[in-house]
Amino acid sequence: MIKITLPDGSVKEFEKNSTAIDVAKSISEGLARNVISATFEGNTVETTTPLITDGSLVLHTFNDAKGKEAFWHSSAHVLAQTILDFYPNAKLTIGPAIENGFYYDVDFGDDSISDKDFGKIEKQFLERAREKAEFKMRSISKADALAYYKEQNNEYKVELIEGLEDGDITFCDHSDFTDLCRGGHIPNTGIIKAIKIMSVAGAYWRGDEKNNQLTRVYGISFPKQKQLKEYLELLEEAKKRDHRKLGKELELFTFSQKVGAGLPLWLPKGAALRSRLEDFLKAAQKKAGYEMVMTPHIGQKELYVTSGHYAKYGEDSFQPINTPKDDEEFLLKPMNCPHHCEVFNFKPHSYKDLPKRFAEFGTVYRYEQSGELHGLTRVRGFTQDDAHIFCTPEQLDQEFKEVIDLVLYVFGSLGFEDFTAQVSIRDMDNLDKYIGDVKTWEIAEQAIINAATDKGLNFVIEEGEAAFYGPKLDFMVKDALGRSWQLGTIQVDYNLPKRFELSYKGADNQLHQPVMIHRAPFGSMERFIAVLLEHTGGNFPLWLTPEQVIVLPISEKYQKYTEKVLTLLENSEIRALVDSRSEKTGRKIRDAEVNKIPFMVIVGEKEEQDGTVSVRKHGEGDIGTFTIEEFISLIQKEVSKTLVPFGNQK
Amino acid sequence: MIKITLPDGSVKEFEKNSTAIDVAKSISEGLARNVISATFEGNTVETTTPLITDGSLVLHTFNDAKGKEAFWHSSAHVLAQTILDFYPNAKLTIGPAIENGFYYDVDFGDDSISDKDFGKIEKQFLERAREKAEFKMRSISKADALAYYKEQNNEYKVELIEGLEDGDITFCDHSDFTDLCRGGHIPNTGIIKAIKIMSVAGAYWRGDEKNNQLTRVYGISFPKQKQLKEYLELLEEAKKRDHRKLGKELELFTFSQKVGAGLPLWLPKGAALRSRLEDFLKAAQKKAGYEMVMTPHIGQKELYVTSGHYAKYGEDSFQPINTPKDDEEFLLKPMNCPHHCEVFNFKPHSYKDLPKRFAEFGTVYRYEQSGELHGLTRVRGFTQDDAHIFCTPEQLDQEFKEVIDLVLYVFGSLGFEDFTAQVSIRDMDNLDKYIGDVKTWEIAEQAIINAATDKGLNFVIEEGEAAFYGPKLDFMVKDALGRSWQLGTIQVDYNLPKRFELSYKGADNQLHQPVMIHRAPFGSMERFIAVLLEHTGGNFPLWLTPEQVIVLPISEKYQKYTEKVLTLLENSEIRALVDSRSEKTGRKIRDAEVNKIPFMVIVGEKEEQDGTVSVRKHGEGDIGTFTIEEFISLIQKEVSKTLVPFGNQK
Repeated sequence: MIKITLPDGSVKEFEKNSTAIDVAKSISEGLARNVISATFEGNTVETTTPLITDGSLVLHTFNDAKGKEAFWHSSAHVLAQTILDFYPNAKLTIGPAIENGFYYDVDFGDDSISDKDFGKIEKQFLERAREKAEFKMRSISKADALAYYKEQNNEYKVELIEGLEDGDITFCDHSDFTDLCRGGHIPNTGIIKAIKIMSVAGAYWRGDEKNNQLTRVYGISFPKQKQLKEYLELLEEAKKRDHRKLGKELELFTFSQKVGAGLPLWLPKGAALRSRLEDFLKAAQKKAGYEMVMTPHIGQKELYVTSGHYAKYGEDSFQPINTPKDDEEFLLKPMNCPHHCEVFNFKPHSYKDLPKRFAEFGTVYRYEQSGELHGLTRVRGFTQDDAHIFCTPEQLDQEFKEVIDLVLYVFGSLGFEDFTAQVSIRDMDNLDKYIGDVKTWEIAEQAIINAATDKGLNFVIEEGEAAFYGPKLDFMVKDALGRSWQLGTIQVDYNLPKRFELSYKGADNQLHQPVMIHRAPFGSMERFIAVLLEHTGGNFPLWLTPEQVIVLPISEKYQKYTEKVLTLLENSEIRALVDSRSEKTGRKIRDAEVNKIPFMVIVGEKEEQDGTVSVRKHGEGDIGTFTIEEFISLIQKEVSKTLVPFGNQK
Repeated sequence: MIKITLPDGSVKEFEKNSTAIDVAKSISEGLARNVISATFEGNTVETTTPLITDGSLVLHTFNDAKGKEAFWHSSAHVLAQTILDFYPNAKLTIGPAIENGFYYDVDFGDDSISDKDFGKIEKQFLERAREKAEFKMRSISKADALAYYKEQNNEYKVELIEGLEDGDITFCDHSDFTDLCRGGHIPNTGIIKAIKIMSVAGAYWRGDEKNNQLTRVYGISFPKQKQLKEYLELLEEAKKRDHRKLGKELELFTFSQKVGAGLPLWLPKGAALRSRLEDFLKAAQKKAGYEMVMTPHIGQKELYVTSGHYAKYGEDSFQPINTPKDDEEFLLKPMNCPHHCEVFNFKPHSYKDLPKRFAEFGTVYRYEQSGELHGLTRVRGFTQDDAHIFCTPEQLDQEFKEVIDLVLYVFGSLGFEDFTAQVSIRDMDNLDKYIGDVKTWEIAEQAIINAATDKGLNFVIEEGEAAFYGPKLDFMVKDALGRSWQLGTIQVDYNLPKRFELSYKGADNQLHQPVMIHRAPFGSMERFIAVLLEHTGGNFPLWLTPEQVIVLPISEKYQKYTEKVLTLLENSEIRALVDSRSEKTGRKIRDAEVNKIPFMVIVGEKEEQDGTVSVRKHGEGDIGTFTIEEFISLIQKEVSKTLVPFGNQK
């Protein structure tokens, strides 16, 4: 008998040579049907692998990451098999699972493959899958493995095998197909019910452009046809919501080749939207006792040597700025914190002054290679909604909790309801990666865990994910398409106060070192707005959206009344514009829908006579006729529903 | 007879050998008494110089710059004479008039001079002045001039004379003193009634540190004792109002050695004040049809090569920023305009879209040598209240006038009532200094002059002061101490639109090039706030000042009422704080006065009972007892007196 420990801590006994499937069956038949792979003692195993020792076992279904990995890894085998059905001379190289699906890099020799071939491959793939062939691992000697692929003239696999140790080499067989493989498969091919070849692309063997160019065939597969359909719809929706596309269509931001890649230019509507977001946070921060400061975008190189940022970012980022005469070197600031430390150092502090909370929308610059840039989510200059709290060690817990309140307020006001948190602590095997001493790290890590627990956050603890200067709490929000984004961050820092020799006079009349908290609920304005665009598809909350109302006069005859309506709206601080083009009303409505303007107000003869407006809501259509006052109050009510002042939320 | 043309264009005949004094007498005896020098045909002459040809004559009194120059130049002669009275072996070198007074560089040999000697020198100076000795110019041959100073062992004057052409050398005699001199004196020493030796400092002969070090003796003199007294009081007041001193005392901004010289850090009160100024301008700009944009603080080097800024600033400013891998070079932006051109280029424009007015509080960076830095007035990074208007040539006049309106609104709202304007046009002798063609320059220059005339500005036209890319209109304000500061600027630019290939489709369906106007009413936020600090001595307009009200409870007993008062004030958007220290009320009042808080509100038993507040006004004292509502309305009225929305001014 062997003892199997399950994730909930329970221990069950099984006969030696039992499999993951046997364990699943002992729990429920339903689970057994869905289990597609397992992790035993930290290693991926097949569901059919005989277990021969005591150990911990995690069962995987398609709903978790490990399960998906086995599913897609197995699908890559079937894809390779199918490719050989059509192209028997194709040479296979490697075929891993990736974040969404899998690929196989193939040398098609004189043959080639195009999107016209995808249909027949998909059809044949499903034929093959329906064979319900089991994946069977077997060990093979290095000599035999080499002989196998030499016979096939596959120099790629030969090269791979030459890099492996004899005794560590395994092949996987299923149906009539064999591949060099480390294992981690689903029980049989029959589980794969849906396949889509996504695209083909060029890829150099081993990523080196001096090597042969191969064809990378991307695919994705699912246990149900419905899941593939949903995935493709999601992709379609994600394309529509791509913030780069929406940013252009809604005229929020642009990039200029001349100004430089990764350096966004905020167009009027985008700049106004960003300002509203900033004002929203400023108002909350004012209530929460923050003070705004302003600091330059550069600092002497020595400043970042002192802070430790130069050692961290220096060589891989924008290089130092030299000066023509004096012997001075400056850096574009990679972080705002050193500047805020110097603001704190402006005058001596007493414990009675603390906490000091300095906030700034501070733009920082980090070099990213041009190939890594992506819209507003990966840029070379971004604005952090940064603040640094300087407090006594006794105030740390309370301050940390108040920051969590602020982050939750920000997410709530912007419609992010689904989020998790991650407490990032040190990599306990590499403690020398971190600056600062062990004891202060332990206290800080515990303070974060306490605050996260106290605030009821859904959080995980990740070892090795801490910043080099301190542990942190990061927030991951899920957007409307179910994708996760890392946004806000809160970090405890015992190190910068030391490096900048910050101090305050305690009640004991002695000098003490304050604790520092870095925090940014949005994270970066650029990234946050990108995520918000993709989350809302450009349908921003009413309080934030560029234009709240568009007035559509039926003809020029109602220009005077149109102006009256516009003035009344503007006097009530409602953002409104007029479509005075001589287009048909239907066309004006369609354009307003494309521009995602929440309310369309149609004015014609009847409305002018009655002093009313006919109102259409974006995506909903006609919602009736209102007096102007009623309509203003309708808008104000809608705004106050989503934008509650900080501290007044339920 | 000779014909003399006076500044008003009138021509009078005088006998040959008449002097400036004779001309003055022909106008009025009073003028003749006050005339101290003159300019004849563009050259400075003595009032006693015989005029022998026709020509234009300007008479100078102490009230104009040329008069002061002659006065102080003459005073330097008397100072030198006085120094020789005490230090007969001192060697004189040069002694010019400067902006405020004059100096003489002297080699005192083994002797030295300190502030203890100033009194006796001043006394002797006035003795000498009372001799009423006339200044008499005489020509001298180079040989005789050299012989004169060689006999005195004065190698400095010898060196000066060796650099002069024989025939061009003149000496000036007065009393028993003779100096090498080009001329330009007052009639006699008796006019100098007041003298103050200000300081002594080291100065290298000819400014070269390889040469002997001399002693520079600074002095200032006046025709009346009263004027000296006023000048010294002004100096004292200017010291008190020094923005660097006030900025520190009022905790508005600071500098950090670690961050770097010339890079201000805005402390909470200063950042809030600056934000209020920015919000004030934003509100006016919104009404005036501007749209805010946001652009990065760096750009590719090529961007500024395209704009021409690299050729202008490149080598003398912050050097290009290199990147570790890609072959890219960036620059800290010296100007916002190229970025705004690229914002304009975001999409095609029609004449119906114009004018586009893009505004940004854009921080730009220019390298200044550390010795040239001065508080907030000479910095290495500053934020322009920048905007660029892109309009059709037909709209230029109107746009320019509207910008003048905005500038005048800004000055008016901030208490600058005394200002002049300068239209800067090309240096007609160096037309190749400017980019762009001659015809467009002429049109632009005329447009500025028209707008300035139309708006009734008090302006002068200065040749050679234009920016390299276009003509401009600069505003010079006079502060409360009578000092002039260059603040706002408006510039027409036909060149950047060409360089960035900007275009719009005209009514004729053809592409045309827009005209660009650069403008910044404040100029730079840093410089403007510095000037405002010195102008107001830290007593900002009520709408702008950091704290409007301080509540001074007489004792802890009134804490609850104090909080009520504070809450009511804050609910009315009044910036208030409480001095809850256990100090005497007198002390609290004194501290509030030092902190220049406009209103002090004292609360004690009587106030709590009656629901009132006792109010003191900064610098005025007790102004009576008010209900809280009355007091709030008093403040609101005072604010609305100085802060009238743009467009609603009288």
